[in-house]
Amino acid sequence: MAHALALGRRGLGRVWPNPAVGCVIVHDGRIIGRGWTADGGRPHAETRALQQAGAAARGATAHVTLEPCAHHGRTPPCAEALIRAGVARVVTALEDPDPRVSGKGHAMLRAAGVEVATGCGAAIARRDQAGFLSRVTRGRPMLTLKLAATLDGRIATASGESRWITGPAARMRVHAMRASHDAVLVGGGTARADDPALTLRGFGDAPQPVRVVAARKLDLDPQGRLGTGVAPTWLCHGAEAPADRRAAWAAKGARLIELPVRGGQLDPVAMLEALGAAGLTRVLCEGGASFAAALIQADLVDRLALFSAGIAMGAEGLPALGALGLGRLADAPRFRLASVEQVGPDTLSQWDRA
Amino acid sequence: MAHALALGRRGLGRVWPNPAVGCVIVHDGRIIGRGWTADGGRPHAETRALQQAGAAARGATAHVTLEPCAHHGRTPPCAEALIRAGVARVVTALEDPDPRVSGKGHAMLRAAGVEVATGCGAAIARRDQAGFLSRVTRGRPMLTLKLAATLDGRIATASGESRWITGPAARMRVHAMRASHDAVLVGGGTARADDPALTLRGFGDAPQPVRVVAARKLDLDPQGRLGTGVAPTWLCHGAEAPADRRAAWAAKGARLIELPVRGGQLDPVAMLEALGAAGLTRVLCEGGASFAAALIQADLVDRLALFSAGIAMGAEGLPALGALGLGRLADAPRFRLASVEQVGPDTLSQWDRA
Repeated sequence: MAHALALGRRGLGRVWPNPAVGCVIVHDGRIIGRGWTADGGRPHAETRALQQAGAAARGATAHVTLEPCAHHGRTPPCAEALIRAGVARVVTALEDPDPRVSGKGHAMLRAAGVEVATGCGAAIARRDQAGFLSRVTRGRPMLTLKLAATLDGRIATASGESRWITGPAARMRVHAMRASHDAVLVGGGTARADDPALTLRGFGDAPQPVRVVAARKLDLDPQGRLGTGVAPTWLCHGAEAPADRRAAWAAKGARLIELPVRGGQLDPVAMLEALGAAGLTRVLCEGGASFAAALIQADLVDRLALFSAGIAMGAEGLPALGALGLGRLADAPRFRLASVEQVGPDTLSQWDRA
Repeated sequence: MAHALALGRRGLGRVWPNPAVGCVIVHDGRIIGRGWTADGGRPHAETRALQQAGAAARGATAHVTLEPCAHHGRTPPCAEALIRAGVARVVTALEDPDPRVSGKGHAMLRAAGVEVATGCGAAIARRDQAGFLSRVTRGRPMLTLKLAATLDGRIATASGESRWITGPAARMRVHAMRASHDAVLVGGGTARADDPALTLRGFGDAPQPVRVVAARKLDLDPQGRLGTGVAPTWLCHGAEAPADRRAAWAAKGARLIELPVRGGQLDPVAMLEALGAAGLTRVLCEGGASFAAALIQADLVDRLALFSAGIAMGAEGLPALGALGLGRLADAPRFRLASVEQVGPDTLSQWDRA
């Protein structure tokens, strides 16, 4: 199962709206088939592993990181394929919470006489598939917030200078994070100030994550980097976005998502739900400070990835997080340390919402 | 030598103004004497190790983390003692930069026919003895700045609430830091706001570090915790400190250190030099934010120990560092990562001035 989980992780950021599943088929102690969800979500992990195994699958054990699907979608259900191949035993990590599956895959296997064991490696699988599970159970993607700050929590000088605070190793690590997320999300202020490409670079021909910008008035320049066709661009805006800007962006191929405005800003919950409805399971927010604060305030941040550089900038520097409007210390949102490591000359600590 | 270095570290924070030295004497592959500088600085490591070794020292090899002293102080020189004991070979990590020694110890040994090798474990020894070396070569103690902040670099809510941001393991670690420093230093604002004890707790009968407060006007309450006699209290103040406050603090046994005032604050360089002249080799600054910023601005911080807790506080929170008055990012002081680790639910990263 550990091997199946590792295979499954290969699909993160490349298979939405599908789950990134891994499958290892073993017969007589030998691996005879390995598969993971293909880019775009099809074929499924089981299909690819069964194809490798061929006739040797008869009597074998299949390890799958998620309950095999039981419904006819664009392809016949994987549970059926496992039965047809004569697999004797199926070990899974998780039951699929998708109401179209949700125990039906396991039941279909059992009804056909296949032995089923579940819950193997469940904790790791839940973590790996947090995005898919979040979309199915909460109707919104898992959200990772990346911060890159000085050791005193600043992301730029008072005049806005921020290149570079962290080193090349940290910046490459951010690209690895983009690669394992379905989309990169920034606030409109960051898009206007930095004109970022928000593309994945240095990872060969890996699929580009969707670029999502939250810009209430849609006041973004279609001639900027986000207007290039190198990656999909989705723009979240309010009803007040003028028709000519909408038309200009639509002409650039951007997807426009109109959202309710609350308290002068796009409703962050509605935004995440819209992104979930559009199929995204894993979203990486890269700032800016007030947009990040709004997401934390709305309790939408599931994971926080903090790069810290060995620079003291002082209180005039721009803070990594905008105002949260907290009264007491007890009200401050808390995160649980998941890992801490050195990345080049910087540190990376990752925290999960407690 | 690794063992001698480990023994030497036992003396950190307990032997000022002396260096914390370790000594291991080996004969025929067996350790026959081990010593480290005793609390208060006497007896020296070599004296204690020779005492253990007794007559077996004849023909043995002594590993010492610093060049043995060559001058008659309160005790006869260690180089002489090693010669008298008949030691055949002395291996040292560093030459002692103290002008009273500075090569004379090695020369005295060589003149007596003792074989001398030096530079063994020099990098670690330089790090361990950074405080002593700083005092001798720069005329001021090594300064460690401790910060304990939220992951976005805040040390208290807007209303000043700060108990507790970090967990018990981090707070215990701070006491371990106090134990290995000669003195704990805070700004007057912190002393007034928190009335801290600044004592070492949880370490048995370890010597208490000196408590140093920088309070220009000496506006501190002698009835507060700093007025208790449980640990030495040194107060740095300007010429404007009123006579009655000086008298009240002197009556409490505090040592008063008058310093020049520059730009409305005690001159931090003069302060550190006064502390060095008074014998301190390792000083741990524990805040507050503007005092810490003044020390960084004056480029006096040699090491920065940053505890980060999994709390998001937002931009209204009090920043860990006050204003540094920086223009460009290139002007920001940089620190090199020495270590990063998990301490209970928090992280601790330690950075050396680059």
